[in-house]
Amino acid sequence: MPELAVTPNSLFSKFSDVRKRVERIDAFGDVRPFGVVFEELLSPTRAMVDGREVVLAGTNNYLGLSYDETCVAAAKTALDQHGTATTGSRLANGTYSEHVRLEEELKDYFDASSAIVFTTGYQSNLAAIGALAGKGDHLIIDTDSHACIYDGCRLSDAETHVFRHNSPENLERRLARLPETGARLVVIEGLYSMFGDVAPVAELTEVAHKGNAMILVDEAHSVGCYGYKGHGVSAAQGVLDKVDFITGTFSKSFASIGGFCVSRHPELEMIRFTSRPYLFTASGSPANVAVARQALDIIAKSGANRANLWARVRQLYDGLLSLGLTPLSPPGPIVAVEISDELTAVRAWNDLLNQGVYLNLALPPATPQSKSLLRLSVSAAHSEDEIKKILDAFRVVPTGKTLRTAS
Amino acid sequence: MPELAVTPNSLFSKFSDVRKRVERIDAFGDVRPFGVVFEELLSPTRAMVDGREVVLAGTNNYLGLSYDETCVAAAKTALDQHGTATTGSRLANGTYSEHVRLEEELKDYFDASSAIVFTTGYQSNLAAIGALAGKGDHLIIDTDSHACIYDGCRLSDAETHVFRHNSPENLERRLARLPETGARLVVIEGLYSMFGDVAPVAELTEVAHKGNAMILVDEAHSVGCYGYKGHGVSAAQGVLDKVDFITGTFSKSFASIGGFCVSRHPELEMIRFTSRPYLFTASGSPANVAVARQALDIIAKSGANRANLWARVRQLYDGLLSLGLTPLSPPGPIVAVEISDELTAVRAWNDLLNQGVYLNLALPPATPQSKSLLRLSVSAAHSEDEIKKILDAFRVVPTGKTLRTAS
Repeated sequence: MPELAVTPNSLFSKFSDVRKRVERIDAFGDVRPFGVVFEELLSPTRAMVDGREVVLAGTNNYLGLSYDETCVAAAKTALDQHGTATTGSRLANGTYSEHVRLEEELKDYFDASSAIVFTTGYQSNLAAIGALAGKGDHLIIDTDSHACIYDGCRLSDAETHVFRHNSPENLERRLARLPETGARLVVIEGLYSMFGDVAPVAELTEVAHKGNAMILVDEAHSVGCYGYKGHGVSAAQGVLDKVDFITGTFSKSFASIGGFCVSRHPELEMIRFTSRPYLFTASGSPANVAVARQALDIIAKSGANRANLWARVRQLYDGLLSLGLTPLSPPGPIVAVEISDELTAVRAWNDLLNQGVYLNLALPPATPQSKSLLRLSVSAAHSEDEIKKILDAFRVVPTGKTLRTAS
Repeated sequence: MPELAVTPNSLFSKFSDVRKRVERIDAFGDVRPFGVVFEELLSPTRAMVDGREVVLAGTNNYLGLSYDETCVAAAKTALDQHGTATTGSRLANGTYSEHVRLEEELKDYFDASSAIVFTTGYQSNLAAIGALAGKGDHLIIDTDSHACIYDGCRLSDAETHVFRHNSPENLERRLARLPETGARLVVIEGLYSMFGDVAPVAELTEVAHKGNAMILVDEAHSVGCYGYKGHGVSAAQGVLDKVDFITGTFSKSFASIGGFCVSRHPELEMIRFTSRPYLFTASGSPANVAVARQALDIIAKSGANRANLWARVRQLYDGLLSLGLTPLSPPGPIVAVEISDELTAVRAWNDLLNQGVYLNLALPPATPQSKSLLRLSVSAAHSEDEIKKILDAFRVVPTGKTLRTAS
């Protein structure tokens, strides 16, 4: 941890509070919770940390495709055929046949009229939100929105309004109070990444449309996991054909890097000419795009990974319940356990790592409602034994709650 | 090109002007200038466009490493060992040993105290600028700055001030007029991507420091190309040890995806805990990071590619001069030729493509001073014959100037 310059008017004086906080958190164990290095990856669900093998219970590798043989092979073929990078933006020399094919396949999969691929998931929301809503328009976003939604609003010239998390009533009131002028775009997520709670997408879509707004649903964590063919929460709630825009990422279930926006409105295509995070960035490398294409094919054609995922979700969820721990949301690929306070959470995180289980420590301000969380995520690649190991580790960990003894 | 909804208060009505302009540009030829698809890549300098083989004279593949055998091999090894993606952010499960090694190697190469790797070059400037300058601080940026510098300022809570392009005098006046309170960060680029002009980094650094400001130099286009060991323009002007921060990208000379910020100040490390475009994005895939590491090794250890690059730069530059075309800047890897007006530029671009030469059409508002440009870039992988082919194509193209006949 660097010493900080303490001269007045230094750029660095703003870091003194965060530095103290990180030092306090680091002091609890041998491994710094926000400085974990995965020395070797052994499989989608196993890695070496601090010289010791751990089970990974804190990734976004929901379908476990990161070592899928067909995805790895697709990446290698793309490297041989089209090289390691495009070295250009999509509107210059950065559109290869791979990018176009991926966009066509996303259109087919989502039955959409337009699909645009971006270089990261973060940039997908920046690009779509920033370009769709302009001066005089209104963005109405869920208060628990991911940082990239907030940043997208900031890059837009529109006015941003916040509504209460997952509340159709509050959204309705917000919309009723807006001035008549300007277009309106509601932004929500399908599955929220910290608490693992699902949005009432169908209700929110109806409220948005009644209030003369379009709606964008970020399905970053839900594509691949929810819905009969993995389209996400909008599809699972029967409104895939009603939502106006869906954004998503390739860095979770797709086991790649990049992101997308699809829409039933062909006009989305126009943001290719106006969106700065799309125009002024190099396009995804051929290998990354090839992996995303192969993963989409797997997601669209096979339900096997999804079935595995949900079986392991059930096992983890029921196991935690039987220990007396109640996750913050109903069963899903993200399972959040609230811990009484920050330092107890840090201690629990260290204890779990010492027992060979890695999960995510999530502390304010990265969490809603200033909660301290242990965030677990489930992968289709988890074995029954791995979930059992995770649960066993929780038996002997102080979480600020009295655990039941093993049944 | 989609039909646009024309209802009042539609999100899409804002696109009507851009749509008309793009349609007008598209009407000039068989290939849409901003919709070029590279159907097959044949080498770093050859591709198939619209069923025809073209020489690539408009990429950012300055060192031509996109098919380098050692880079491709490094990517494949990373795929086998660590899979297709990390599926997590750097502070969660997204720091693999590759990321740490690349940061150590960047520190060694730049003789820096801190190095942070980002998932795209665009996000590097967003992350560094947005986190270093906060509320009450002042950002003083060159007016010709890249979009991601402007977007980084927008994401920062600091106040942004603009100074005249490459003018130390104007920067000095700007700094003198600022209030005493708040820290100051000057942001410039080493090599500007449109006109290909180099900044007076040494002078600007001196002026910044005299004005109690730190300075960040974006060397996205210059790392690999300038300086004895390829460190960029700051090094070429002898002030690598004086500039405070250098940002760069892996999507140009490094032939990968991602970016970095290095600093002689160890305090840069703290932005890992405060920068949203760093915290809230998945880390670069193992293959992308492996390519960047291998490219850095090549850049640091061998001057051969750089020597090739500059030999071809000379050939192209002198050839254009002998045709009566004067590029906007002295010789460098980016060569911009001004065309009298937008439609003449579009026509010239089409004519060149028909002759098998792809380059970048750059039109306002993406260009400074509302100029219409043909932007050429040189690669170390270009052969003498390929540069000759590019020059031959220019002989018969209407550029709004009378060309000299072949000598």
